[in-house]
Amino acid sequence: MSRTVRIGLLGCGTVGGGLVTLLGDQHGQILERHGIDLELARVLVRNPDKKRKGVEPALITTRSADILASGCDIVVELIGGVEDAARLVGAALDSNRSVVTANKALLAAHGVAVFAKAKARGLRVGFEASVCGGVPVIRALCVGLAGDSVESLSGILNGTCNYILTLMEEGQSFENALARAQELGFAEAESSLDVDDHDALQKLTILSELAFGGIPAAEVSLTGIRAVTQRDIRRARRQGQVIRHVATANVDDGALRLSVKPELLPASHPLAAVRHENNALVIRARAAGELTFLGRGAGAMPTASAVLADIIDIAHAA
Amino acid sequence: MSRTVRIGLLGCGTVGGGLVTLLGDQHGQILERHGIDLELARVLVRNPDKKRKGVEPALITTRSADILASGCDIVVELIGGVEDAARLVGAALDSNRSVVTANKALLAAHGVAVFAKAKARGLRVGFEASVCGGVPVIRALCVGLAGDSVESLSGILNGTCNYILTLMEEGQSFENALARAQELGFAEAESSLDVDDHDALQKLTILSELAFGGIPAAEVSLTGIRAVTQRDIRRARRQGQVIRHVATANVDDGALRLSVKPELLPASHPLAAVRHENNALVIRARAAGELTFLGRGAGAMPTASAVLADIIDIAHAA
Repeated sequence: MSRTVRIGLLGCGTVGGGLVTLLGDQHGQILERHGIDLELARVLVRNPDKKRKGVEPALITTRSADILASGCDIVVELIGGVEDAARLVGAALDSNRSVVTANKALLAAHGVAVFAKAKARGLRVGFEASVCGGVPVIRALCVGLAGDSVESLSGILNGTCNYILTLMEEGQSFENALARAQELGFAEAESSLDVDDHDALQKLTILSELAFGGIPAAEVSLTGIRAVTQRDIRRARRQGQVIRHVATANVDDGALRLSVKPELLPASHPLAAVRHENNALVIRARAAGELTFLGRGAGAMPTASAVLADIIDIAHAA
Repeated sequence: MSRTVRIGLLGCGTVGGGLVTLLGDQHGQILERHGIDLELARVLVRNPDKKRKGVEPALITTRSADILASGCDIVVELIGGVEDAARLVGAALDSNRSVVTANKALLAAHGVAVFAKAKARGLRVGFEASVCGGVPVIRALCVGLAGDSVESLSGILNGTCNYILTLMEEGQSFENALARAQELGFAEAESSLDVDDHDALQKLTILSELAFGGIPAAEVSLTGIRAVTQRDIRRARRQGQVIRHVATANVDDGALRLSVKPELLPASHPLAAVRHENNALVIRARAAGELTFLGRGAGAMPTASAVLADIIDIAHAA
């Protein structure tokens, strides 16, 4: 007994391409385990001439209207950016399609409106992939701790900053570490790293909205890693400590405080073990105590894994 | 817009009492966030004379038939043990109630039959609390990695063994560490620790069934921590290593191998940082890469938090 669920895919870049690969690899297993026959209905791209591995050329389109006209059941938004994505996600919801997105910027800018529209229509928005890539922190906050009260969040939410700090621990200068991160494509070529500092804050904002549901932030502070020197790192090591770029959210006297800054942590701290481009989140909850989640926070395949999990979850509920 | 969901509670011991407390504390928040008005319909206990904080005396019963007769929507099984629990869970499913259980022994003995009966009737069995207490590893395997392929599992699944090993790291003898674990109620008074070794294997079996879906185990090996000496631990430390009681499952050439044994790990290994009674699981998946989950694997409130999350999840889907 199986059911066909047709996906309208917006965007076929890094993550979209990863999703197409994963859909191909896992199609049989998903059919067998979940009874869901996942099928690409139509794929929106900017450049129709580029060859897309695993996508039949007939499915490619450059007209967004073709996605909804394809009769797809779920719309997966992986084009990134804010305004086009918001328009397409809004149109998908208006036409009664649930949506899966990996787009943190979209949610930061228009999350409230997107979730309200979905809720009013009884639709779902899957966004596990928008924070911490393949690490299921959204699901932990929304489902795993649904009956608990979160007291604080603290995490390493930007892989690039963490990569630079761990390379500096290995003796490299800030400049060399940044250059290496740029080589690997973690950091933008002309990055001042401001992007990455803000990236961590944006993710923290999404997580704290889920954890503290609607309490407005009374205080937001953001300090980048540019001021961290080799000398700071060596001094920390002599004291059995490490420096990490830590995003923290907690509620104190009813006031929500968000901060992202370099912090000294004892070597035994769960975030101290987070190295290179990994992400981690420590959630302290009243009943569950301290929960730590750690893994690859970015990259085509980890992100695609989270997107596909959301697709299957929504397909089950449909 | 809210909906009342009535819970038939089987058992009001450590975890059951924790759940009653949590339901009281969180009732308003769950109503506000999820629109679900959770209510205790009836509570099955062995000793009706004992005072149960937070439970109206009129709800207490010693007759299991009263639970289903109460018209409850969901049955929560927290009596432990195998045969009575299996009978009551079977009866709940037969009467079209979804079930939440924290009972690992029940699932190890009768999981296949329980899940088959639930599936045939379109019901759900929530069992997040059965492995790793409040750490959402079941949901990670079943939902978070639904579209991925798990390659291996390795974890610290028994808090007592880990507690003893970390106390030995702090210089205590095995005997003193065991006595302390017994004092704290982690280990049974007359424990030979066999119980704890088997406990880890039972949990590993449940997790590997979810991860590798039906591949029978070709090889199962179990070694307890009794043979670990202070000398082993000191030698490990000199080499920058620690000893942990590690449960591992992987598939090699189509054959599933399960093992639980003391292992030497480099101090930088994610499981090396797991101390005292904490649990952890490292899941390696093809697309998502390596994911680590860490937290309190037992205790009334962490376990109750996982039970309540399952209740809310099922109430949403109902």
